[in-house]
Order: sequence, then C-alpha cells, then structure tokens
Amino acid sequence: MNDSKTGVDSLTVGYHGAAFESLKKSGAEIGDRVRIVDDTKIYEGVLIPQTELGDEHIIVMKLDSGYNVGVHVGSGTKIEVIGKGGKPSFIRPPAPPSREDLPKVAVISTGGTIASRVDYRTGSVEPALTAEDLYSVVPELSDIAQVTADVLYSEFSENLTTKHWQEIANTVWKYYQKNMQGVVICHGTDTMAYTGAALSFVLQNLPIPVVLVGSQRSSDRPSSDAATNLIGAVSISSASPCSEVVLVMHEKTSDNFLLVHRATRVRKCHTSSRDAFRSINSPPIARYDLREKRLEFHVENYRKRGEGGNAALKPNFDDRVALIKFYPNMNPGVIDWHVDKGYRGLVLEGTGLGHVSRYCYDSIKRAIEKGLLIGMTSQCIWGRINMNVYYTGRDLLSMGVLQLEDMIPETALVKMMWTFGQTSNVTEASKLMLTDLAGETTPRRTISGEQ
Amino acid sequence: MNDSKTGVDSLTVGYHGAAFESLKKSGAEIGDRVRIVDDTKIYEGVLIPQTELGDEHIIVMKLDSGYNVGVHVGSGTKIEVIGKGGKPSFIRPPAPPSREDLPKVAVISTGGTIASRVDYRTGSVEPALTAEDLYSVVPELSDIAQVTADVLYSEFSENLTTKHWQEIANTVWKYYQKNMQGVVICHGTDTMAYTGAALSFVLQNLPIPVVLVGSQRSSDRPSSDAATNLIGAVSISSASPCSEVVLVMHEKTSDNFLLVHRATRVRKCHTSSRDAFRSINSPPIARYDLREKRLEFHVENYRKRGEGGNAALKPNFDDRVALIKFYPNMNPGVIDWHVDKGYRGLVLEGTGLGHVSRYCYDSIKRAIEKGLLIGMTSQCIWGRINMNVYYTGRDLLSMGVLQLEDMIPETALVKMMWTFGQTSNVTEASKLMLTDLAGETTPRRTISGEQ
Repeated sequence: MNDSKTGVDSLTVGYHGAAFESLKKSGAEIGDRVRIVDDTKIYEGVLIPQTELGDEHIIVMKLDSGYNVGVHVGSGTKIEVIGKGGKPSFIRPPAPPSREDLPKVAVISTGGTIASRVDYRTGSVEPALTAEDLYSVVPELSDIAQVTADVLYSEFSENLTTKHWQEIANTVWKYYQKNMQGVVICHGTDTMAYTGAALSFVLQNLPIPVVLVGSQRSSDRPSSDAATNLIGAVSISSASPCSEVVLVMHEKTSDNFLLVHRATRVRKCHTSSRDAFRSINSPPIARYDLREKRLEFHVENYRKRGEGGNAALKPNFDDRVALIKFYPNMNPGVIDWHVDKGYRGLVLEGTGLGHVSRYCYDSIKRAIEKGLLIGMTSQCIWGRINMNVYYTGRDLLSMGVLQLEDMIPETALVKMMWTFGQTSNVTEASKLMLTDLAGETTPRRTISGEQ
Repeated sequence: MNDSKTGVDSLTVGYHGAAFESLKKSGAEIGDRVRIVDDTKIYEGVLIPQTELGDEHIIVMKLDSGYNVGVHVGSGTKIEVIGKGGKPSFIRPPAPPSREDLPKVAVISTGGTIASRVDYRTGSVEPALTAEDLYSVVPELSDIAQVTADVLYSEFSENLTTKHWQEIANTVWKYYQKNMQGVVICHGTDTMAYTGAALSFVLQNLPIPVVLVGSQRSSDRPSSDAATNLIGAVSISSASPCSEVVLVMHEKTSDNFLLVHRATRVRKCHTSSRDAFRSINSPPIARYDLREKRLEFHVENYRKRGEGGNAALKPNFDDRVALIKFYPNMNPGVIDWHVDKGYRGLVLEGTGLGHVSRYCYDSIKRAIEKGLLIGMTSQCIWGRINMNVYYTGRDLLSMGVLQLEDMIPETALVKMMWTFGQTSNVTEASKLMLTDLAGETTPRRTISGEQ
C-alpha cells in the first residue's frame, strides 16, 4: 500500500530502524530478488515485508526452497539487488463455481487485515479484490453464499470519518436495493464499533442483516481469526433472522464460537486478543457455533429479518460534536475552545455516575447558553449514570446537561453527530438523544438490579 | 454540607422537583419538626434528607415512633413548620476504650461516603470527625487498631486536584514519621484510582502500607459496603506485609472478600456496583478474607513492609499535562490548543494498539517540535500497546511519540504530571515515563502470551 500522504514507502513495507536504512541504501524493494552477504553466509531470494512487529535488525527473504528466512543485518552486511520484482499479484487457486441456490451476500471491504491477503511471493499486502479472491482466501465461503465483493477503501480504520460512514451506508443501501440477503462489511477493528454505531442510526429499519467483521490477527499468522470471523459473518448475514447492524467477532480465544454484538452496545476492550470485543450494558444478541453452524439467541428483542417495509437511509452527520474525557486537573478551557469553534454538542465522559469537577461548571453553563447540547456519559465503561444521587450530578442536570443513561460514550458521540445531521434544533436533538433508536439505551425502569 | 459555590442548599438536602418546591414554599428545613397534611392523613415528625435518588414527589420524615416515612406531595398537600431543628449533631454510642497493644493506624478522610455518617435525627450528613466517631460508626475498628482520625477534606472526589494529592501525601508522610504502622485514606470512588496513582509516585519506598478505601453505597443503605471496606482497609494497613500504595474494595457483590489492588493498575470499571474496581493488565496484589481475617497474596513481587530505609517524599506535580481521548473526526486543533497554552505533555488515548488518525499527525509533530512529551496509551482498557505492528504506529514512533506499553491512560496522565514536577527536561522526562517506578508498567519481554 503506497501512502504518499504519510510518507510510508510501500516498497519497504514493515521495515524500520537499521533494516530499513540498509534496504534504503541498497535500493532494494519488496518483491526484488536480492543477495545478502554477511561475514559467514550468502542468502539469495525475494525480499518480503515484515507484516507484524519485526526486529529492526532483521530482513525477511523467501528462499528458492520456498522457506522464509530472517537475516540479521549487522555493520558488515551487504545487500545487493540481483533482479527487479514484478508487479505484485496473487497466485490464486481456481475459484470454486458460484452456486445459484445460495443466498446473495455483498462483502464490502473498507480495510483492515480481515479481507486482505499477503502474497508471499512478492510479500505485497493486498485487499481481496473480487469474489474469486475471497473464495481463494476462504474457500468455505462458496458453500455459504453467492458473494459479491466490493472494495470501497483500503484504510486503517482510525482514518475513517463521517464521510466514510456515509459512503459505507450508501453502499449497503445500494446492495439492499439489489435484493441481497445480507451485507458484510470488513473493517479494521480499531474504530469498527464507532462505524457500527453510525450505520445503526443511518440505516433505519433495514430488513436485512448488516454484519461488520474484523480480525485481530492478520491472516498470515497461525493464530489468525480472519477466516473464521469471515465465515461466521457471511453465514450470519445470509441466514440470521435478526436484521440489525451487528459486529461479529470471537467469543473466546478459541475458534469455536463467535458473538453477535449489537453495534450500538459494543466496544473494543483489549488491544490484541481475539476476544477483544464485548457487549456493554447489554448481552450480545446471539452466539454463533462455528462447528454446528448454529445461531443461539441471547435476547428476544431484536429486529426481525424482513420486518418493517419502512426502511430509510438517513446518512447525514454533523462532525461538530466532540467527546471530552474528564480527568483531575482538566483545563475547562478545552470546553470553551469547542464552543468558540462552533461545535454543536459535546459528549462528556465524566467520572462514576456522571460527574465532573465544579471548576468545569462555568464553561458548561456557557456552552449551554451558547446553544450547545451537552450529554453526560461515564468513563467507567460499565453501568448506568445517575446524576440524581449526588449534588454534583444534580447541579449539572439543573444546568441542562443531558443524562445519557446507560449509553456508552462512543455511541453517544456518534449518535450526537448523526442527530445534528437530522436537525439543528437543540430541543429536538435532546429528544432524539434520549429516545432509543437502535438499542443504544435501555430506559431506567426496565433494568432490574442495576442502578 | 453547605456548598455556597454551587448553589446547593444544605437545608433541603436531596430534594428536587415538586418536593423541593413545596419545602421551599413552606420554609421547612432539614431537622425542623413539620406537619404534613394531605386529603386523608396528617403526619408529624422531623424532616430528613433524601440521601440517594428520590422520587420528586416524596418527602421523608422521621416519625416520633422512630420510623421513617415517605409522604407523597400532591397538589392538595400542606406543609407546616411546627418547630425549628437544632444544630445537627451525632448521637454517639459510647466509644470502646482504645487498646494500647494494638498497632497504630491513621485514618485520613478526604471525602466520599466511606467515612461519613448520616444523623437520622437531623438528617445531616457529616464526616466522621474523631476516632470516637469512627469507632461508633464501625465498632469493630477498636479491636483492630488504635486509630488516629484526621479529616483533611470533605470533598467529592471529582473536585480533587494536584494540590490535594500533594497535601494528602504530606499528611501520610507526617503519620509515617509519627511511626504509624499504616495509613488509611478514605476517598470518594470517582477519582480514587487517580489519587492512588499520584501517591504511588510521590511516596517513594515508604516502608508502611498506604490503603485507599471508598464505598460505592452510602452507609445509610442496607447494601452499604462502607463498614466492611473500612474494616478491611484498617486491618490491611495495620498488618499487611506489603507496603505499597493500594486500593481496597469489594471483590464481588457479596461481603466475603476484598481485593487489594496496586494503585497504579486499578480503574473504576462500573458506575454503581460494589465490585466496581478492577486491576488492569496485572492481577490484584492480594485478596482479604473478611471472615477468616486472612490476606492471600496473588503476586510475589510486591514491596515488603519495612523494606528500604530510603523512603522519600517527592510531592511536586505540574498540571500542564492533558489526557486526550482520540475518536473519529476529532479536531486535531485540540492538540494545538494545549501546545499554545504552554502544556508540557499530552497522554493520548489512541485506538487499538496505539493509533490516531493521520489527520492528527501535523499537530502531533508540531507539539513535539515545540518540546512537548507525547505518550501513547490505548482506549481499549486491557492489553498492551504495540506501535510497531502497523504503519500508523511506526509513523507516530518515528515522530517521537512515546509508547507507554501496558500503562493505563489514567496512571500515565498522573505519572506525567508527577514527572514534570521532578524535571523540566523532556529527555529526562521520557526516561522516567518509560521506567517502572511503582509497578505501573511491565517490560514487554516478561509477559508471556500477550502481545
């Protein structure tokens, strides 16, 4: 992937430090045939990238034997290019024929490792471009669905913005109108939950499942969850009776079960483990048994496939909404800054039941006077906020701060961006924020045993 | 508690809505003897506060029988003051005598519900002021230690700042020099982990335990954890072989076990449940069995009581350090704003393994050029960051962003504030940030099975 904006060089993918410097000096590029000579040995082969964390002194080559070898780069090491590499391309096994009796599913790629593949001949990391590519990566798919593959982006998910959410939603809508039985969205895991929440508000009453899926370990690693997650996602999108926007990821570190999380209630809770995603303040909608190919529902209150007939696409967002996490000694001027920048709303991540220090009160009052909507959530992750328990909370409520109940901060942020895409009226926006639109919040009284 | 700054009226504690309005109109204040007349009944008694969330149509009275009753306020309800209340005071049972064979422990109150008590005659919520007060609230304490009680503040913990951390540390140091066997700090739970982390860096090699303790449910509620947490905290501070700064809170919702968390590794993870605190990326140091009065250690690598002899108090902080949580569409101008305000450092809460969008790069570069220290942590909560896996992370590393490994964002923030209290040199500050000073981080290589 050549990314001129960030200065990343596609031709030295994965290398850094001493190895990167040596390669630069030699002019060697990924896919080139190179000879590396050190004090004792000579290696010849094709230079391949380091796709995961690499030692900065190691260069990886594919030898003619087919084996990969990591060569240590010392002060005496010489690197010589002995043949230029060709344009990266896949070596595909023949794709299985498409079966017309199977349900039709669109697989939209936005990036992340889930729908990419590493070509070990050239080492290039490429998005899977066509249904044939997908079938060749995960042949099982051809027994599950007739897949239409669509590469929308090849982006690290931290680079996605409201514009991307909008385009993804438009693409899902297009496939819904083409009578697909389900849509799968391959996505980097970092911000997958934010995108999932966004789609939940944009795609209203869609009668087919929209399944976001990612992978915590890239497909060239033995521990990869890419194939199982993709198989699960395509299976669920093609056959699930639930037509909500969901995230499908591993339940545990083993390969037996996937969880189906409601996209407005899920969060990436671990940096690297395969079971990083957790439903928050709400059980996962269902569990998928990969061996039995069976979906067990954990809840009953989900939107049923085919229900509605009043599907609507509401893709507008206003990104003048910020998430501010409170911490001791926070400068309340950061609130003022957003007000002065013309922001429409702020989601605060307060402490505990929904508090911020009293030294923030003046800035919050001013923000509300200037017409901003201020919503309170908690940095605790789990639990419901309750601003009636202590004076602090009641003071904030009396200023007009919205109590966002058990909504998670990330979803509250996305929902407020979406809300100001629907209306510029703060009173209407408040009402929308407090109305459960996509399972993002549960009214206080119906939860037992939780405050 | 009368808090003129926030406009809270101490005389109508806990009331809001219709009940508040009715009380205001009647002139009734907490502790007054009142008569409430509605269509069918007459109640006489002492007006007491609602200390937790109350229905806005209910007024609570203590009847002469001793029972409390909630009276519904409707449009026809009349409230009449028939006697003014006296100055709030405790009705104390006689304090048990202090036993000189027991270890000496200081209990420092900073606020929160843990060391306060509600006087039901007058309804006043008061901090426990003396050892006798503490003994009368929790008589078991007199069999565990000779307690010296010290009310430093009576603050909601979200109002505490570096200034308070400093004063709390100075007070602990004072009691250490008075040869106390341990110190307990009663603290509101909202920011208890931040304060705990602060004390961990300030109080270096202290040979006695420092135990922060809080309560998730106030002591007037049947489900209160105040007494058991305080008993555990005093027991542990007086007898534990571990002399670190720790937080002691419930393990589960039942009353049998408490967990001893290392203060640099703990986080409030639930808004209201009694087992809200969790050790992150590290096991709790120990578990305390309340029935058996026994401490079971989960780890071996803790600082032993009496060890050192090189105890030091380093109480300086620089609060020109901010925590910024990244989210999709974040305006990078918020980074510039902190730079222009003269901040010394920023802790970023990135996504996943430690990423932010490329549209933040220019601002981060500029911040580093202007001499700020930028540290990366993850908003995932669990797991280690690893910025070598993807280009995004490597780009940030090459700009000079510090990879803060498995340190939690809140601890990283506090540590950076403390670090700039020790040095104004960014290179030295970087080194300190990457050095494990109080168990806040584990070097990469010693963790098995974690990336």
